[in-house]
Amino acid sequence: MAQSIKAGIVGGAGYAGGELLRLLLLHPNVELAFVQSRSQTGKPVSSSHPDLLGETELVFSAGASASVDVLFLCAGHGEAAKYLAENEVADGTKIIDLSQDFRWNECTATANVEADGRSFVYGLPELQRARIKEAQFVANPGCFATGIQLALLPLADQNLLTSEVHVSGITGSTGAGQSLSATSHFSWRTENISTYKVMEHQHMREIKRSLLSLQPENQPNIHFIPYRGPFARGIFITAYLQTDLSLEEAQALYKGYYEGHPFTIVTDQHADLKQVVNTNKCVLHLQKHGQMLVITSLIDNLLKGAAGQAVQNMNLVFGLEETTGLKLKATAF
Amino acid sequence: MAQSIKAGIVGGAGYAGGELLRLLLLHPNVELAFVQSRSQTGKPVSSSHPDLLGETELVFSAGASASVDVLFLCAGHGEAAKYLAENEVADGTKIIDLSQDFRWNECTATANVEADGRSFVYGLPELQRARIKEAQFVANPGCFATGIQLALLPLADQNLLTSEVHVSGITGSTGAGQSLSATSHFSWRTENISTYKVMEHQHMREIKRSLLSLQPENQPNIHFIPYRGPFARGIFITAYLQTDLSLEEAQALYKGYYEGHPFTIVTDQHADLKQVVNTNKCVLHLQKHGQMLVITSLIDNLLKGAAGQAVQNMNLVFGLEETTGLKLKATAF
Amino acid sequence: MAQSIKAGIVGGAGYAGGELLRLLLLHPNVELAFVQSRSQTGKPVSSSHPDLLGETELVFSAGASASVDVLFLCAGHGEAAKYLAENEVADGTKIIDLSQDFRWNECTATANVEADGRSFVYGLPELQRARIKEAQFVANPGCFATGIQLALLPLADQNLLTSEVHVSGITGSTGAGQSLSATSHFSWRTENISTYKVMEHQHMREIKRSLLSLQPENQPNIHFIPYRGPFARGIFITAYLQTDLSLEEAQALYKGYYEGHPFTIVTDQHADLKQVVNTNKCVLHLQKHGQMLVITSLIDNLLKGAAGQAVQNMNLVFGLEETTGLKLKATAF
Amino acid sequence: MAQSIKAGIVGGAGYAGGELLRLLLLHPNVELAFVQSRSQTGKPVSSSHPDLLGETELVFSAGASASVDVLFLCAGHGEAAKYLAENEVADGTKIIDLSQDFRWNECTATANVEADGRSFVYGLPELQRARIKEAQFVANPGCFATGIQLALLPLADQNLLTSEVHVSGITGSTGAGQSLSATSHFSWRTENISTYKVMEHQHMREIKRSLLSLQPENQPNIHFIPYRGPFARGIFITAYLQTDLSLEEAQALYKGYYEGHPFTIVTDQHADLKQVVNTNKCVLHLQKHGQMLVITSLIDNLLKGAAGQAVQNMNLVFGLEETTGLKLKATAF
Repeated sequence: MAQSIKAGIVGGAGYAGGELLRLLLLHPNVELAFVQSRSQTGKPVSSSHPDLLGETELVFSAGASASVDVLFLCAGHGEAAKYLAENEVADGTKIIDLSQDFRWNECTATANVEADGRSFVYGLPELQRARIKEAQFVANPGCFATGIQLALLPLADQNLLTSEVHVSGITGSTGAGQSLSATSHFSWRTENISTYKVMEHQHMREIKRSLLSLQPENQPNIHFIPYRGPFARGIFITAYLQTDLSLEEAQALYKGYYEGHPFTIVTDQHADLKQVVNTNKCVLHLQKHGQMLVITSLIDNLLKGAAGQAVQNMNLVFGLEETTGLKLKATAF
Repeated sequence: MAQSIKAGIVGGAGYAGGELLRLLLLHPNVELAFVQSRSQTGKPVSSSHPDLLGETELVFSAGASASVDVLFLCAGHGEAAKYLAENEVADGTKIIDLSQDFRWNECTATANVEADGRSFVYGLPELQRARIKEAQFVANPGCFATGIQLALLPLADQNLLTSEVHVSGITGSTGAGQSLSATSHFSWRTENISTYKVMEHQHMREIKRSLLSLQPENQPNIHFIPYRGPFARGIFITAYLQTDLSLEEAQALYKGYYEGHPFTIVTDQHADLKQVVNTNKCVLHLQKHGQMLVITSLIDNLLKGAAGQAVQNMNLVFGLEETTGLKLKATAF
Repeated sequence: MAQSIKAGIVGGAGYAGGELLRLLLLHPNVELAFVQSRSQTGKPVSSSHPDLLGETELVFSAGASASVDVLFLCAGHGEAAKYLAENEVADGTKIIDLSQDFRWNECTATANVEADGRSFVYGLPELQRARIKEAQFVANPGCFATGIQLALLPLADQNLLTSEVHVSGITGSTGAGQSLSATSHFSWRTENISTYKVMEHQHMREIKRSLLSLQPENQPNIHFIPYRGPFARGIFITAYLQTDLSLEEAQALYKGYYEGHPFTIVTDQHADLKQVVNTNKCVLHLQKHGQMLVITSLIDNLLKGAAGQAVQNMNLVFGLEETTGLKLKATAF
Repeated sequence: MAQSIKAGIVGGAGYAGGELLRLLLLHPNVELAFVQSRSQTGKPVSSSHPDLLGETELVFSAGASASVDVLFLCAGHGEAAKYLAENEVADGTKIIDLSQDFRWNECTATANVEADGRSFVYGLPELQRARIKEAQFVANPGCFATGIQLALLPLADQNLLTSEVHVSGITGSTGAGQSLSATSHFSWRTENISTYKVMEHQHMREIKRSLLSLQPENQPNIHFIPYRGPFARGIFITAYLQTDLSLEEAQALYKGYYEGHPFTIVTDQHADLKQVVNTNKCVLHLQKHGQMLVITSLIDNLLKGAAGQAVQNMNLVFGLEETTGLKLKATAF
């Protein structure tokens, strides 16, 4: 008989929370015990997420209204730490946090982030699947952080980050959440492009921490320019650096590193963003131009970059097949 | 042990064929025996559908390279009839055709279309589920035809189509297939709107035929204006007509008619297209303004309007649960 | 020597105000005396409208900081009346109001709206150019109202509105202004469609009033379904009604009615929205299907539907050539 | 009395030709003598460019059907050279070519490209306005080339290109012309991103040639990644390099270099693409992060990147004010 995991979501009215809801409702081993939302308490979940009409009769609760095996925190940056400080969580409950609150600390190369007696494992399965399997508390990586790390891990793993790394990343509007702002207004954003947090994106901290754990010495600078793109979903990353590796050697390195990782695919074809939209995949493509190795890395920011990876982590924590509930039909168009 | 259905696709390189592939690869009871494409013979399926990288090693075949339990024809209008005329299909093989070749004939209100000794059932489950369950040959409805019929069937069923019906339908670019044309060029279509086939859309034939089967007398005119919209997926239909029904009576009528039909949902909330995108659902919303009943009907043209409904029909033909393999995560954003 | 008109704008930080600014800065006969904005007082105009960087050094003023020949009110619905109640305006100053405050009153078929001793002429040049030329106070029409009236005026003018009229109108996001809302969020609106104010749009009042002024008897119902479209600019209107006119007769009627009106063009080609975007044009296309005359009417909601028409009205009021400052390069793509 | 320049366009049915038409029809000193198109000979210009309905009665001619003062070649790469080889052009006629045929030759740092007795001046006014004023034959720069050069010229001018330069450029779909292709299909391109010609874009040749003319020694590598963006118009360029200049010094350098150049604006505000769409401007924004100077450079690829710059060059060649006919209302939204 199939395992049944009781799950609760804190902060279920936002984009990441909604995406998690969609996944958990279809997950064969999950029973959704509650979905909490402060702003939507008492309203049907389908009023915030109208695509779920007919899928669920759940109503947003004011708090964690049932005991659960796993608690997902989608409360936002700063709010997760606050929630755990203010609310009791039962001893055995696993926690998977989608905020940045427990991803990173000042100690550069240690594994976990300790907070109030809890030890959070950084939840990037392609970096530390074994640790996640043993974890009770998981800090789910950021979206840009996921895409950029997956572009660079195989090199760091072989101490091959030997020149400056130049990264561009273009994100869809859902990356900024559902709060209203001038740059999320349709009239502004459609057919438009802009940069933000140039060379100062907060995800660089967790990226560097991971890379240092693999290549602790002589790590080069990483320069990162984030862009706002006129599309709703997805992250398109281009990273390049000088290397002596031939294209074939680089491809072999990447394919070897990701062997056995079901969601991260190294392709020899040119890649475009929509082949990963609405999937939990990361597609990587390599090119070599002169001395430059150019890596393209594509993810759906709400799935592999947030809720999908959270479910992947849950699967690992509970000993399920890693892909359970995550074989998703791509939107494709 | 689960039933295993061997399936083949003729015309697998196009939009509908690709969508069918995506669905069948994830369907728990289907084993995909071959995917034929004249233009792509010998190439990996993932070269035409790069989102399927890592999902399948299938290569497009030149012909029906294996015997199958069910054959899907995605060859295009005119090509399906031609394929069946030129190729042998084993006696017991079920056929589900996505073209318009077998949807309609001159006899207005009879059930099936006879062609070369085959009798095609019109495959709209909400109209004739019982017949589909017994069918060997199914003519899958058109996309606009599906959305418009689902907006009007409950009324026709009660002989309540008693005034002229005014229909607008806005379709995404995938509705026109992947052939290149001035109106599918991004530079033209983005941020643009236009009409086409005004009051002359070919789907009106199959719509009228279905409505006549329910309400054979006094059927009013239906006026239909199709629009090309600046989006890739989905059909948004608005239909209105004069009626004495109150809003509550109309809602009860629609909810009653669609009870037990898992994909067609009558909602009291205002509806927008993206709540059905990448699902097999049809969402219906009713409003009453003065004497006018206004019906909104939303589908994804490639799913409930094509490949999803084809799988739904296959499920019915083979006695499976109707929703098998069709519980899809909506794209939502 | 060219005439120089001193102009002021109240409410210059919004979409319509900004568009008016763009036009007036390029208008050969206008000197912009001030641009007022409550929310942006003291900031450079180019901080709200960054495309104007390098075009103007103007700073938003707190009030009407200079005496002007013409005052444009872009303050929003309700705010225009309030502004005039609370602020002195010099006796000879012409006023062109872009809100709905003075477009309409209960008396169905009289010409002007009287308010606090001012008599506002409804500023649709194709309906009452002669009156506008004599006017001191002009109520600029609504955007949907402009597009729909231009689709129907020639028929009303000949008492040929003899059957129910069915209208659909799809508007871009700028039609809803720059205020932030769930339906203006990019993540929601991109690739999406929805309806709003179905059969209840407030512009119907000014439309009916104009049509009654031409065809006071036996006016049929007009049914109007407004849509939110996934594009920033423009309005696409389709209207149809039964008529005995042949297509040729209808075309002759429309071409005759609009002869001498430089912005309203009757074309025999199929039309699409982008041919009017960023122009002050209205393009009309006629089709006949059976008894139905189908009229397509296209405008840019911010220009012919707002600021462009306001400048057209200013030109008429001051005796300038109607097209002065309005020969605009279409965006086209 | 105003000067009147007789102009002809070869290749008027494409995107650049159409844009040029739009500009020249509104230009106060230009009389359009003919618009040639092989594919559209005999058809009204407004059938290919429907936004010009009502603006012109011109019909596409088969050849250069009149003698002109200036001939614009919009025939496409390779076609311009072919046209000049096969057709007589009167001795005094000025020629402005929008293709890449005469932009570049093997001699790295010389000024002009000699071809069949004609000497083509590279037509970037911000680089060599004085030469253009004296020129009879002008090679109009490429779109990416324009945006990237304007981002780097002030540094090269002071021999300050002293470290590797890293450039990303995202282009709208009109950049690829109106020919139909998989990557110009709306279904593919909407909400999508991809790269192409990574580190191999042909515009690098003309860029390097210009930079070498200013800084002939020790020129560093420039790495350029071009992207296809999901929008129709515009180019968004980010370039960065190490420099000892402070932000203030860099801003002073750029503002000084572009002083007196009316279309190139150095702003202290964050910039987004739509502030230049449908204008002939280039907006430059500088940031300093650590040692890195980050330059954003925005143009409309069809205007400053093609037809607008061609008109700017014509103005210079004929001794007109540089901005004549180029004060365009931005689309803004």
